[in-house]
Amino acid sequence: MTVKELFEQKDKILNSRVFLQGWIRNHRKQKEFGFIDFSDGSYFEHVQIVYDEKLENFEDIQKRLVGCAIEVEGLVVNSINPKQDFEIRAEKIKVVGDCPEDYPIQPKRHSREFLREQAYLRPRTNLFQAVFRVRSVLAYAIHKYFQERDYVYVHAPLITASDCEGAGEMFHVTSFDLDKIPMKDGQIDFSQDMFGVHTGLTVSGQLEAESFALSFGKTYTFGPSFRAEHSNTRVHANEFWMIEPEIAFCDLEGVMEIMEDSFKNVVKYVLEHCPLELQFLDNFVEKGLIDKLTKLVNSKFNRVTHKEAIDILQKAPIKFEFEPKQGEDIAKEHEKYLTEYFNGPVFITDWPKDIKSFYMKQNPDGKTVAAVDLEVPGAGEIMGGSQREENYDKLVARMDELGMDKSTLDWYINLRKFGGCVHSGFGIGFERILIYLTGMDNIRDVIPFPRTPGNCDF
Amino acid sequence: MTVKELFEQKDKILNSRVFLQGWIRNHRKQKEFGFIDFSDGSYFEHVQIVYDEKLENFEDIQKRLVGCAIEVEGLVVNSINPKQDFEIRAEKIKVVGDCPEDYPIQPKRHSREFLREQAYLRPRTNLFQAVFRVRSVLAYAIHKYFQERDYVYVHAPLITASDCEGAGEMFHVTSFDLDKIPMKDGQIDFSQDMFGVHTGLTVSGQLEAESFALSFGKTYTFGPSFRAEHSNTRVHANEFWMIEPEIAFCDLEGVMEIMEDSFKNVVKYVLEHCPLELQFLDNFVEKGLIDKLTKLVNSKFNRVTHKEAIDILQKAPIKFEFEPKQGEDIAKEHEKYLTEYFNGPVFITDWPKDIKSFYMKQNPDGKTVAAVDLEVPGAGEIMGGSQREENYDKLVARMDELGMDKSTLDWYINLRKFGGCVHSGFGIGFERILIYLTGMDNIRDVIPFPRTPGNCDF
Repeated sequence: MTVKELFEQKDKILNSRVFLQGWIRNHRKQKEFGFIDFSDGSYFEHVQIVYDEKLENFEDIQKRLVGCAIEVEGLVVNSINPKQDFEIRAEKIKVVGDCPEDYPIQPKRHSREFLREQAYLRPRTNLFQAVFRVRSVLAYAIHKYFQERDYVYVHAPLITASDCEGAGEMFHVTSFDLDKIPMKDGQIDFSQDMFGVHTGLTVSGQLEAESFALSFGKTYTFGPSFRAEHSNTRVHANEFWMIEPEIAFCDLEGVMEIMEDSFKNVVKYVLEHCPLELQFLDNFVEKGLIDKLTKLVNSKFNRVTHKEAIDILQKAPIKFEFEPKQGEDIAKEHEKYLTEYFNGPVFITDWPKDIKSFYMKQNPDGKTVAAVDLEVPGAGEIMGGSQREENYDKLVARMDELGMDKSTLDWYINLRKFGGCVHSGFGIGFERILIYLTGMDNIRDVIPFPRTPGNCDF
Repeated sequence: MTVKELFEQKDKILNSRVFLQGWIRNHRKQKEFGFIDFSDGSYFEHVQIVYDEKLENFEDIQKRLVGCAIEVEGLVVNSINPKQDFEIRAEKIKVVGDCPEDYPIQPKRHSREFLREQAYLRPRTNLFQAVFRVRSVLAYAIHKYFQERDYVYVHAPLITASDCEGAGEMFHVTSFDLDKIPMKDGQIDFSQDMFGVHTGLTVSGQLEAESFALSFGKTYTFGPSFRAEHSNTRVHANEFWMIEPEIAFCDLEGVMEIMEDSFKNVVKYVLEHCPLELQFLDNFVEKGLIDKLTKLVNSKFNRVTHKEAIDILQKAPIKFEFEPKQGEDIAKEHEKYLTEYFNGPVFITDWPKDIKSFYMKQNPDGKTVAAVDLEVPGAGEIMGGSQREENYDKLVARMDELGMDKSTLDWYINLRKFGGCVHSGFGIGFERILIYLTGMDNIRDVIPFPRTPGNCDF
């Protein structure tokens, strides 16, 4: 029986015998008794195991430390401790895996920096039991949302010869020995590499998703993405997960509705399925977390154009570090002001084309594109999307204007030639949502084994 | 309205007006009429659009070719064609994206080799509508199976400094310019690379999954995996997806039960959720496919040790190309014989330790390990798993015996020191199951944009 089943069936199984397998999370000993705080990882709450001298191996068990793996046979009984409904009166405890004194995870508060160095053990702490359970449930909520609406899940390739954004710094992928790179006429001879061309790790699966949207109507990716950036910030990692839904016959207005609905829906799912985890995070990580999430689910997202947003910022009664200007990007401090101004999430639409990607739908004004960022209080930009340029000539002209190499993207351009249509999509930074959902303030603490500059342990 | 909704609600909406957006898949014209075979990708079946001279733009529509994107307004009416329940009598048809004559996807049978070159368009064919819908539904079935049983989904890292199997050929990942690799004392100076060490693309997330299993009890990965192998076969790709469940307090027997139950369960889910797709694949790709799958779901998997399997092979009344020998591996032709011999799926357990991985639980005989392969009729090995060596000393001794570098795996070894316990896991080759489920015989045809030696298009 798992601890989760125990909690679910506790009323039915009072006074019956159960068999549990798990770990000592805390151990208090008295002369004739012992109390074990027990977890098998199946449930956020622990269960208390009480044992006494009648135990055959009482003295041995009393010596066992935190982290030890044990098997327990015992009775489910009412607890005299008012904080808990029930406890297990142990009849047998068997040690199956010992744990020494130098075990790094002790029942005390460890710093998150210390726990990052113990990434393979930190899921055993309450904090990371909560964070990584939420991560798993959120991933499922996302799949469930899109699958129940008949989106086709597409695995975009990770190794790629094209550079989606035309900008992102990419990791190189090669099967060459790095100290024996073959050269030919002063150039690297990629014809000898695995794929016969220079390849890197993808920065986005969007372009491939567009090909699926124009076949299946609705599609989404959910996979890893990479950036070879030397950014040591709280929100950047070199490897992270993205969801990229893409919808045919859908314009900017339509995609904003999907962004809003999907976001509320997955947050609601996590609220419903991780109540204990969120309560813990509310208590110890971000006060008011559950209120924040509940408010989001029930709010109506605001909408404003980039131009209107800059107007609001310019009239703001505060001084920004970066002065807000028409035609320019919106800084973190601006995002913060805008979400406070609207007292809730806000879509910013119709961005200056020069600060956005080549594939975005050009608006009739010739200056802006049909792009949208979703800004959320306390988290900033959490999703970004756009209507895609479906006009063949305009897309080609824009790529030429930007001096892009069209040779590896001919297929993408051809999607506009062979029955192209209005279509839109957006990208969800999976870890961005997780940071928002958990209240954790560093991306390193929401990824099981994070990869950041200088860090590739485990 | 989508075509799927149309088919689901057809009885209710007879004689009502609908609005559809999608593509011309076929177009037959007569002097005063036209018939459009119409699809929006939401449903495997197409719907017939009938139009006549009353259409305002009749002449223009008559010229439109296969692939063209259109919007249709019309009435749902009973069809005179006995092959279909209903059709749409068009009142308006608007062309939103034209398609020229040189469109590669014509309504005729294209070779799969040709379609691989058109990978961005092939999801528009019936065959790949079926294959990639099944791929998506299968992925969801797998998540659903494990999530409903409270497994924690863990994203194992893709970029790694360790080599899980101690054997697989790995792709190198670097942020160095490949023609400017910095050297120091005759060696590559990886201290200057992004992570400060030599990194590659993972061949397995199992080791990281073990750390989660020993925290949460039950966990699974579902992510991409890579092999830098120059294998040009029907079953190898350089990039593919794997599912790696890992369970604490679970032995070989227990993990076989999970392998059998999960496999039957996901096949059943696809049978229930992709009936049209499977019927098409049964008709045109593998005769008897649905019977094969239904039989699998209702079968009891056989179990045999490696030793017994070799005994059976040695007594077989046929001559193998490779002679079966005790202590040696089992070839494709042997797998085939065994699944025919048992007339169903068979687990082969207790393999010679020298042909299996270092982390597998050493059996008391000193010669075999508690490993298992699942062989399935017509597909060969589809899953492989093992109990893991939980004994610290035995694991270290085995790694030393194999001359492995323990420095990057100290954390993995430590899992045996800090409350280790019996645990087991297995790996599912996602594409292997897909090949089995669809009857497709080449891995290139079940991956949206496959990566194989010399091929990295799209």
